[in-house]
Amino acid sequence: MTYRAPLDELRFTLEEVAAVEGLKATGAFPDFTSDLTAAILEEAAKLAENVLSPLNRVGDAEHCKLENGAVTTPTGFPAAYAQFVEGGWQGLQFPAELGGMGLPRALGVAVLEMIQGANLSFGLGPMLTYGGIEALIAHGTDEQKELYLGKLLTGEWSATMNLTEPQAGSDVGALRTRAEPNADGSWAISGQKIFITWGEHDCAENIIHLVLARTPGSPEGTKGISLFIVPKILPDGSRNDLRAIGVEHKLGIHGSPTCTMEYTGATGWLIGGENAGMRCMFTMMNSARLNVGVQGVGIAERAFQQALAYAQDRKQGRAIDTEGPAPHAIIHHPDIKRTLSLMKAKIAASRAICVSCAVATDMAEHAEDADERAAAKRREELLTPVAKAWSTDIGVEVASLGVQVHGGMGYIEETGAAQHLRDARITPIYEGTNAIQAIDLVGRKLNMDGGAAFDELFSDIGQTIEACTTSSHPDLPPLGDRLQDSLDAMREAVDWLKEVDMKDRLAGATPFLTLAGETIGGWLLCVGAVAARRRQKENIGDPAFAAQRIALANFYAEAVMTLAPSRVDDVTMGSEMIDEVGFGV
Amino acid sequence: MTYRAPLDELRFTLEEVAAVEGLKATGAFPDFTSDLTAAILEEAAKLAENVLSPLNRVGDAEHCKLENGAVTTPTGFPAAYAQFVEGGWQGLQFPAELGGMGLPRALGVAVLEMIQGANLSFGLGPMLTYGGIEALIAHGTDEQKELYLGKLLTGEWSATMNLTEPQAGSDVGALRTRAEPNADGSWAISGQKIFITWGEHDCAENIIHLVLARTPGSPEGTKGISLFIVPKILPDGSRNDLRAIGVEHKLGIHGSPTCTMEYTGATGWLIGGENAGMRCMFTMMNSARLNVGVQGVGIAERAFQQALAYAQDRKQGRAIDTEGPAPHAIIHHPDIKRTLSLMKAKIAASRAICVSCAVATDMAEHAEDADERAAAKRREELLTPVAKAWSTDIGVEVASLGVQVHGGMGYIEETGAAQHLRDARITPIYEGTNAIQAIDLVGRKLNMDGGAAFDELFSDIGQTIEACTTSSHPDLPPLGDRLQDSLDAMREAVDWLKEVDMKDRLAGATPFLTLAGETIGGWLLCVGAVAARRRQKENIGDPAFAAQRIALANFYAEAVMTLAPSRVDDVTMGSEMIDEVGFGV
Repeated sequence: MTYRAPLDELRFTLEEVAAVEGLKATGAFPDFTSDLTAAILEEAAKLAENVLSPLNRVGDAEHCKLENGAVTTPTGFPAAYAQFVEGGWQGLQFPAELGGMGLPRALGVAVLEMIQGANLSFGLGPMLTYGGIEALIAHGTDEQKELYLGKLLTGEWSATMNLTEPQAGSDVGALRTRAEPNADGSWAISGQKIFITWGEHDCAENIIHLVLARTPGSPEGTKGISLFIVPKILPDGSRNDLRAIGVEHKLGIHGSPTCTMEYTGATGWLIGGENAGMRCMFTMMNSARLNVGVQGVGIAERAFQQALAYAQDRKQGRAIDTEGPAPHAIIHHPDIKRTLSLMKAKIAASRAICVSCAVATDMAEHAEDADERAAAKRREELLTPVAKAWSTDIGVEVASLGVQVHGGMGYIEETGAAQHLRDARITPIYEGTNAIQAIDLVGRKLNMDGGAAFDELFSDIGQTIEACTTSSHPDLPPLGDRLQDSLDAMREAVDWLKEVDMKDRLAGATPFLTLAGETIGGWLLCVGAVAARRRQKENIGDPAFAAQRIALANFYAEAVMTLAPSRVDDVTMGSEMIDEVGFGV
Repeated sequence: MTYRAPLDELRFTLEEVAAVEGLKATGAFPDFTSDLTAAILEEAAKLAENVLSPLNRVGDAEHCKLENGAVTTPTGFPAAYAQFVEGGWQGLQFPAELGGMGLPRALGVAVLEMIQGANLSFGLGPMLTYGGIEALIAHGTDEQKELYLGKLLTGEWSATMNLTEPQAGSDVGALRTRAEPNADGSWAISGQKIFITWGEHDCAENIIHLVLARTPGSPEGTKGISLFIVPKILPDGSRNDLRAIGVEHKLGIHGSPTCTMEYTGATGWLIGGENAGMRCMFTMMNSARLNVGVQGVGIAERAFQQALAYAQDRKQGRAIDTEGPAPHAIIHHPDIKRTLSLMKAKIAASRAICVSCAVATDMAEHAEDADERAAAKRREELLTPVAKAWSTDIGVEVASLGVQVHGGMGYIEETGAAQHLRDARITPIYEGTNAIQAIDLVGRKLNMDGGAAFDELFSDIGQTIEACTTSSHPDLPPLGDRLQDSLDAMREAVDWLKEVDMKDRLAGATPFLTLAGETIGGWLLCVGAVAARRRQKENIGDPAFAAQRIALANFYAEAVMTLAPSRVDDVTMGSEMIDEVGFGV
């Protein structure tokens, strides 16, 4: 089953939902014109459809192989990676003066969705390199930038994030890898890191490992962690003292080498200052979190496309109210059509959240006005955990529904639907489990700047409610009412969370994140519906596409937004009721 | 990770929730005493824990192998099967006069849950044999019973159900396998069947295939289908003309051979009369549907146990409000405890539905009074699709949550958590997809006997509400209020479904089944809470266990039952709103 880049969806989300016009107005992206956007999306679509997508099953079937410290990626991966480098895709969203294309993150996310949808295992390589580039730009010295940034921006070199150790997963502060100072100002890094994505591979000339470690006498916990640049090949051309000693046998993403890395006095250079590792890590992590959310959208889109194609092709039974001789294609069965509608609506909602989060990231950096930048930063910080967790929950849910639409064929590996579920299942786990995202949302994000982030969000949602309820289109006012109920529910939950102690907050974290995702996703679908209505009136674009935007928002309002009041009951349950269930602890 | 049979849970469900006392009162099961029940559950637990559970990972890793038409099951499967036969487990729930143990289906389901929880791939063999036995008892001639029943009841021979063909999955009526009459009254069966569970294997001496086929001149569709007994080894000892020509490469249940069977003029005997195949199929299917629901409970229980053990063992971070030095076991983190509580509550609810369905099946056959039998039959028919679909949805959900509790380790195959998700994922598909169950529920079941099945259910739920709201325990009246809301929602949905046309009904089928599962499951947790309260007052049993029953019901009421009103919005959305989403059809 092939992948088709959802260009219409991406363009509509960029232009009408995530409001990139404001981004253009900053003047920070002179090349970010409609024409160039269209050209870039189409070129990326070709790469995704013709180069990366055909390797998706290959990667799943072949896995990665480790022999004598060298990892062989699946057949075709190195050649595809070369094409990725050739196209300059790695540098798309980085400043032109550094060697990038100078385009906004918003467009980068749209391109990334296609790459991830086409081939999640392949896409992980470039995704990790983004993090390395961002850490270098934000925290590297001029010399470090000079040494590494150019090759990373072209993709000739790739980067990794080395955080996790067996005893230090979500609790990064528990790590034990050591860094001892060398006489020349470099450091000797020793320790073992696990779950290192693309830790070793045969696609790039060099791999720049960004490794968290402790310097001698550093404080305990997260305060005593430093970040080091540890290249596989040293600047003098010699091989560094590090190697992959294991490749994990995983449920999915078989084409992505997940390595155990061993550092035995490897030479590294401090980046961002001693004991400032957590700050550097969050630079990489924040970007990675949004990107993982985009993976959720990408894999969901792919699973949806495959299920839709199967439902249009597979004939079974006599569908009610359907013309032509039976058997009918199963898409005519109301339950199948409902399932596909749910998949499509949730994908559109999570895509809108991810692209909006990217726009906020761009605006936080480039808006002219300082207040505007601060507000955009708050929006980015609020949306990042939602984009990561809610979109990846949807990735798993939609991939599972995709298997179900296939019936028995979905359970057979040859069909390919099961691979999407296996691949998607990692996304709620890595780069901070979805529970960690939820805790971030009800913890630091809730009271940030006196709760301004949520107040501003609620105000924006209120404007969309106003636009819906005053619309002359018969479908829009009821949509506004549903959104109002959802907003009221979210306000109620926020008010409760602000009142209670931290234990109760933590107990309500996950349902609150779900409520936030469902509400914000619904809001953005309503924004899309209002824009679609405007397009209809002004005769812009495909009328069927516009009508579908309104229908999707309506469907979502009934099937998903109506859940909001029950989510509040769940959020406000309190920790005592959970403690009473017991488990002998 | 090992499996521990949940004996306390099963006993409580049998004794206090599913009301097996009424079953004892029928006098149909003289051996069904508390002592024997305890002894049988404990023996079954030994088989599950010590024999079947250790083979679960073996089966996953080894898969089944097909060579020259012979299937080799994973190492240890044949020996384990021999122990299963030795223990007489296959005949547990069949009449003593036929060679069974003469015990009720309710106890059979409890035993089956342990077998499935221990090893889903293994458990499928005996599960299919049940169906064969039931078809023979209900529809076989005396001669057929004489020939096959004895060996099937001991398990020395196994049985299969041959329904599916490439073009005939959910639409059984589209099948093409032919049956031509032979001169001696037997039939020559020719055709290909796919997805045949345990279609060929090395565990039993003979395999009795029950094959749906068309006789010459038979009417089109489901009206022209007949069922045939087609043994692998013919009564004269010769090999029949049938063979496995393929074994599927599946997402999970690798230890269960899913075969493509080829019949090339194989000798078969008609069972149940010409063109009466659908009726016979439903005899097998109804039983199989409940049993698949039990699989959902079993695999969820296993996934829960593994996640609980991991959460108690894995130390990460500093948990709030927790004594002792950090790092703390992750079960102390409120979000993890919430997840485990949700898993446990949903398992208890789905187990209660499955055991109650089994009790209804027993009562439908053995209650003394004809009206009581008819009412029990209605309850069985109402609960069967709910038991199948809702429990298997929970199997997948809980197995996925189990992966999540493990964090990164959950994604590594060696951990075993991922296998449960892969294994569970088939259960919402086979024996009638969950959509088919939902369609059955809003179709035939809704208006059966003028809607009596739902009226009776609502009346029973009302009694439990009364018991809760009048209780002196402070937790029970609010529980009664939540159950009342859930019941009101279900009534509203039923009233709407009865009013609208079939297309709207079909569009609302899946959310209605979910609403039914959540409401009935919640009701039965409330029944358990009321019983636990009685035990507390009468000082019966473990007080901590009783308190947990009440806490679980409370937790479920807030986290799940509160969803009921939104389910109604989803049910009553109507097909038009779905049609508007489009998909070009």
